[in-house]
Amino acid sequence: MSDTLFDLPEATRELRDTALAFAAERLAPHALEWDEKRHFPVDVMREAAALGMATLYVREESGGAGLTRLDAAVVFEALATGCPTISAFLSIHNMVAWMIDRYGSDAQRADWLPSLIPMDRIASYCLTEPAAGSDAAALATRAVRDNQGYVLNGTKQFISGAGVSDLYLVMARTGGAGAGGVSAFLVPKDVPGLSFGANEKKMGWNAQPTRQVILEDVRLPAEALLGEEGQGFRYAMSGLDGGRLNIAACSIGGAQAAIDKALAYVRERRAFGQEIARFQATQFRLADMVTELEAARTLMWRACAKLDSGAPDATAFCAMAKRFATDTGFRVADEALQLLGGYGYLADYGIEKIVRDLRVHRILEGTNEVMRLIIARGMLGK
Amino acid sequence: MSDTLFDLPEATRELRDTALAFAAERLAPHALEWDEKRHFPVDVMREAAALGMATLYVREESGGAGLTRLDAAVVFEALATGCPTISAFLSIHNMVAWMIDRYGSDAQRADWLPSLIPMDRIASYCLTEPAAGSDAAALATRAVRDNQGYVLNGTKQFISGAGVSDLYLVMARTGGAGAGGVSAFLVPKDVPGLSFGANEKKMGWNAQPTRQVILEDVRLPAEALLGEEGQGFRYAMSGLDGGRLNIAACSIGGAQAAIDKALAYVRERRAFGQEIARFQATQFRLADMVTELEAARTLMWRACAKLDSGAPDATAFCAMAKRFATDTGFRVADEALQLLGGYGYLADYGIEKIVRDLRVHRILEGTNEVMRLIIARGMLGK
Amino acid sequence: MSDTLFDLPEATRELRDTALAFAAERLAPHALEWDEKRHFPVDVMREAAALGMATLYVREESGGAGLTRLDAAVVFEALATGCPTISAFLSIHNMVAWMIDRYGSDAQRADWLPSLIPMDRIASYCLTEPAAGSDAAALATRAVRDNQGYVLNGTKQFISGAGVSDLYLVMARTGGAGAGGVSAFLVPKDVPGLSFGANEKKMGWNAQPTRQVILEDVRLPAEALLGEEGQGFRYAMSGLDGGRLNIAACSIGGAQAAIDKALAYVRERRAFGQEIARFQATQFRLADMVTELEAARTLMWRACAKLDSGAPDATAFCAMAKRFATDTGFRVADEALQLLGGYGYLADYGIEKIVRDLRVHRILEGTNEVMRLIIARGMLGK
Amino acid sequence: MSDTLFDLPEATRELRDTALAFAAERLAPHALEWDEKRHFPVDVMREAAALGMATLYVREESGGAGLTRLDAAVVFEALATGCPTISAFLSIHNMVAWMIDRYGSDAQRADWLPSLIPMDRIASYCLTEPAAGSDAAALATRAVRDNQGYVLNGTKQFISGAGVSDLYLVMARTGGAGAGGVSAFLVPKDVPGLSFGANEKKMGWNAQPTRQVILEDVRLPAEALLGEEGQGFRYAMSGLDGGRLNIAACSIGGAQAAIDKALAYVRERRAFGQEIARFQATQFRLADMVTELEAARTLMWRACAKLDSGAPDATAFCAMAKRFATDTGFRVADEALQLLGGYGYLADYGIEKIVRDLRVHRILEGTNEVMRLIIARGMLGK
Repeated sequence: MSDTLFDLPEATRELRDTALAFAAERLAPHALEWDEKRHFPVDVMREAAALGMATLYVREESGGAGLTRLDAAVVFEALATGCPTISAFLSIHNMVAWMIDRYGSDAQRADWLPSLIPMDRIASYCLTEPAAGSDAAALATRAVRDNQGYVLNGTKQFISGAGVSDLYLVMARTGGAGAGGVSAFLVPKDVPGLSFGANEKKMGWNAQPTRQVILEDVRLPAEALLGEEGQGFRYAMSGLDGGRLNIAACSIGGAQAAIDKALAYVRERRAFGQEIARFQATQFRLADMVTELEAARTLMWRACAKLDSGAPDATAFCAMAKRFATDTGFRVADEALQLLGGYGYLADYGIEKIVRDLRVHRILEGTNEVMRLIIARGMLGK
Repeated sequence: MSDTLFDLPEATRELRDTALAFAAERLAPHALEWDEKRHFPVDVMREAAALGMATLYVREESGGAGLTRLDAAVVFEALATGCPTISAFLSIHNMVAWMIDRYGSDAQRADWLPSLIPMDRIASYCLTEPAAGSDAAALATRAVRDNQGYVLNGTKQFISGAGVSDLYLVMARTGGAGAGGVSAFLVPKDVPGLSFGANEKKMGWNAQPTRQVILEDVRLPAEALLGEEGQGFRYAMSGLDGGRLNIAACSIGGAQAAIDKALAYVRERRAFGQEIARFQATQFRLADMVTELEAARTLMWRACAKLDSGAPDATAFCAMAKRFATDTGFRVADEALQLLGGYGYLADYGIEKIVRDLRVHRILEGTNEVMRLIIARGMLGK
Repeated sequence: MSDTLFDLPEATRELRDTALAFAAERLAPHALEWDEKRHFPVDVMREAAALGMATLYVREESGGAGLTRLDAAVVFEALATGCPTISAFLSIHNMVAWMIDRYGSDAQRADWLPSLIPMDRIASYCLTEPAAGSDAAALATRAVRDNQGYVLNGTKQFISGAGVSDLYLVMARTGGAGAGGVSAFLVPKDVPGLSFGANEKKMGWNAQPTRQVILEDVRLPAEALLGEEGQGFRYAMSGLDGGRLNIAACSIGGAQAAIDKALAYVRERRAFGQEIARFQATQFRLADMVTELEAARTLMWRACAKLDSGAPDATAFCAMAKRFATDTGFRVADEALQLLGGYGYLADYGIEKIVRDLRVHRILEGTNEVMRLIIARGMLGK
Repeated sequence: MSDTLFDLPEATRELRDTALAFAAERLAPHALEWDEKRHFPVDVMREAAALGMATLYVREESGGAGLTRLDAAVVFEALATGCPTISAFLSIHNMVAWMIDRYGSDAQRADWLPSLIPMDRIASYCLTEPAAGSDAAALATRAVRDNQGYVLNGTKQFISGAGVSDLYLVMARTGGAGAGGVSAFLVPKDVPGLSFGANEKKMGWNAQPTRQVILEDVRLPAEALLGEEGQGFRYAMSGLDGGRLNIAACSIGGAQAAIDKALAYVRERRAFGQEIARFQATQFRLADMVTELEAARTLMWRACAKLDSGAPDATAFCAMAKRFATDTGFRVADEALQLLGGYGYLADYGIEKIVRDLRVHRILEGTNEVMRLIIARGMLGK
């Protein structure tokens, strides 16, 4: 047993190999084109879904893969070596599917999971608003109860997949101020009153659309409520623990791909009469890159295991893993770009895309500043 | 006199104000569009040229503005607040024009400067090759002397303005190995045998084209040689001292614009019930950003003054200023992006473009790794 | 004139040379011993005073050297190459003498300056209290007015020179809460009720004693009040602008000495068959050290010039210079230690003392956290 | 089983608790005094030995505790919360005892282990020389074979415990240049020709003596050779893999103690009307400190498990853990000091000692620069 301490279980490694192969064959060859053309490859994501990757930690009895968060994060890391953007979108879809499985009614599970599992239908997560990021008190989308169900009004911001997704998990205020007044709703794409903003022009993450989701007198039946009224913010946050691990994993996978590209380059490229891999400053930099990335990876694994085992400090560790891995991943990718010199700046070499994609990981699923507040709260009580 | 120590002379401040106004009126309103459409705004650069900005440190007797390097850098910093890419391209054009003024014959000056000054003709600088960055020994483009002049063969890489520019200042090997075998040539665009690669897809600097310059049996008259045979690498390096200051200035200007955008945002945006400018962590970050940027700016000014006065350590200080300002500028812009959260990642807010543009400043005009070697050489002798 | 832009005036360089010579001859040879034996070398400081270094920016008409803050900072930097601790103490004495010259009455100047100039009497600055650092509102030492003068009670903390100094410039509360209730008093050592705590054991700065100053019913005549009632906090802060420049200068001087020691070492020490100065990683590190130190030095000079010229942003620039130079100086000295490997850790090589001494510069004269608040206030108004 | 993935086994936690209790009761109360008085507490180390801590990973059949490297590192981390210096010295003693157990003959084991286990005799490790750190080729101590055994001449540098220790494991050259010419010898303290330099004055690690070990015609019997001739450097390096883990652990333990002290302080100390723990900038800093320390800790655990399981990349991971943990530990302790402001600089608060102690961890057991070379070699192949 000693030989598996602090390393991945054998079954997890096999999952990883499967995901790495998928990334190499189905994602990496197209990632630059998807980025350039802002193409959302729904077909390829369905191929991933066919391998179980759309509902990795949905329970087996619900039709999911029934895997651990550790397994899932390892899969997302592997997929991100091919394209962080697609891996990250799969993570969002997984998160929503898990929330339905975890908090939904039997009817909701029956309605949604059979199509979410193969990604026949695609799911988006709608928490952020134009004037509210992580601040529950500022959440302004309202869901007013009437005798037929709920009427929703409000605008959600930065919604990945919006306009394409078939299902929007929307957090809206049913009660008073604060987190306790928020509920979660399952909003289908075709409901009257639902519309979408323009596809935002972004630094990266171009292989997935990002739009506002606009709710104008959207009428939902009472059955659209997920779980209980007033629990929506809590559900949203519980989804984010795993979401943060997944984003951490996507940063690590992206950075690993950048290191691999840089390694190949420095072994081949020559300057001043020798391979640049032989320059001591190159070696020192590579050593620091890999060291910091392994530290991030190991911390992420540990946070996964904590979430899997329900450890009381799991939320703090998920925040730590997210903060550390996304900052480290970006910095490592940026250093890899530098190792290629001018070539690193060209789109064709694939590293600058990784830098652009990873940049947003420091912001979403809770900014890294919000992560620090969560971590500090874990230390200081309160 | 004491009140002007370590600050800009009054005349330089006036120049800066002129350039800031030009940047605000003629660059900033279009910069995002130029980036998106990969548009090279020759017309607007000619407007800048009409203000003297195409030949800032060409001597007055040659028709230039006759300004100092300090003046020039201050102008480039100011222009970069509107668009770092355009400011940087103007810097390259200035560098070539200066080299003609400094090292050229009367005939060469008469041939080229009257049209370079108003940018009726545009100039590019061609040193880098696919397999040779800063390593003179690896420079492979050859210029073979025959009785009619020179025949050039080779390929230049990462050439800003290539395909549009009218003049290419090409470093080519006329003699043996090493720096002493390199000469500089003035190559007009319409010469037979000159062709251009595809416009490279890049992370940023999209408002200027970057292409290979390919020389196949390009025949030049003997008069195309700039200065003396064997001096070309020395000329190229002397141009780069100033070029590095200018790139440093472009990074500082870009970062200043990013800070200004971030400041406006944090004063308006609210979270958790107050402006985010009032959060202590926001304030600490802003304080560090402005402190590091002022340190970079002041060091850059000092390096300019050293180059202006011909100080023996001018080259080392230009390298220090370039290394420090380009790293600092990028980091500051990246932090500014973070302060805007998700909005910072959107193209419309203008900061992510600055981050992308400034990224290449750490690479070009000699990578920051090469800067370190130059600085160390200055410390250790040899 | 162009050749002196952004460089030190000739007269300032001469001052620097004098101070460097003094540092090399009278400080450096003894600095390690003073540190080890916790010896406060009053005699050697009097030698510095004989050169005018105890009252550098006291006006000439008051008997001082009448120099600029720039001159003074350059002198403190130079002295710190011999011993940062002694240079820093001289800075404190200078600050108090300047405050008497600036805010005192003719009688106070006549009483104190003739002996402070040659350091026949030594002065300490007493602002900090056990429960109050930079927070004026928390200043608890009270001065109660009666018909004979004032009665002071309270305790001052971290007072450099305490127990040896002859004069204590004490900030005490004469009025209500806040900065406006604080006044400044000149307290002679021999006044009844004044006593001192134990000499604190510290990480460094061992060549100067640090003690509490305890005031128990200390009776002072009305003439002991410096300037006007209620202005004491303002005076104290105005002294600190210059004090921060001086501490910045001491950090730069200490770090310069560490670089010089490291340079000598790496040129001589061999490993793996060559001088370690020839290893690229060594060169990169040295290059970064000197670059960052030059950035700090230049920023410090600029802040000095702003204080000299009464620029409105002088306080913000003094805070920037202090923050940047003290962090940079420490880091540079720490890197220098590392370059010596195990020898850097030994007292005999003199670098570890510099690291220990410079550590406190990040804390005193306002912590670097307080500097950030001051800088942010300068940016954000408020 | 899932609940123990990436966490310590229960038995290891119990060991940790034992070691934490020992650290709190027997080390922490005296650590400041030992530092100040440069006292080497042999008696207290023997108490630790009585708990098995002197020979943690010596095999049980040899009388040791038979624990894993993971167990051992966890113990050293725990002990270092009381005093990093003493924990680190115990690590050295453990390393030598392990080498005897691992490479020695039955007779050598019988001679030495029974007294090393209880620390009746104490062991030092002698690899470094005045002119040779990690460079095997430069190792100059010679062991010349004659018909009675070996005659050793040379000087070893920076030897912890020297002058007190009873056993010196000395690497000396028996053959030609390079690593293959080095053998290891067991040198008892009382052998003629063995002497010691002065106890070095150091920045920290004052609770253990550091001296040169001088060998002048030291005659040893053939049985003093450990293992085989020519294998000494390999043995020394194999010992260092574990030694690096232990030093990493000591840095983590020291930094943890610093965090704990800082946390207690910021919760109690008030400024500007509230606990400084409530300032956002304080919280952000604490969050980063704990995040980086957890990353270091987790990476260290993983490296331990790799060494325990004989993974092929164990040496690279030990180097990564050492580099990352010692840099992180120092930085965290330095930040903790800053959180205490002026009090952090005073000896009585105990943090400045931790900073001084941890400083040398970045240098010894192979400098962090040598670690980078080892890591890079692992990435690039030789």
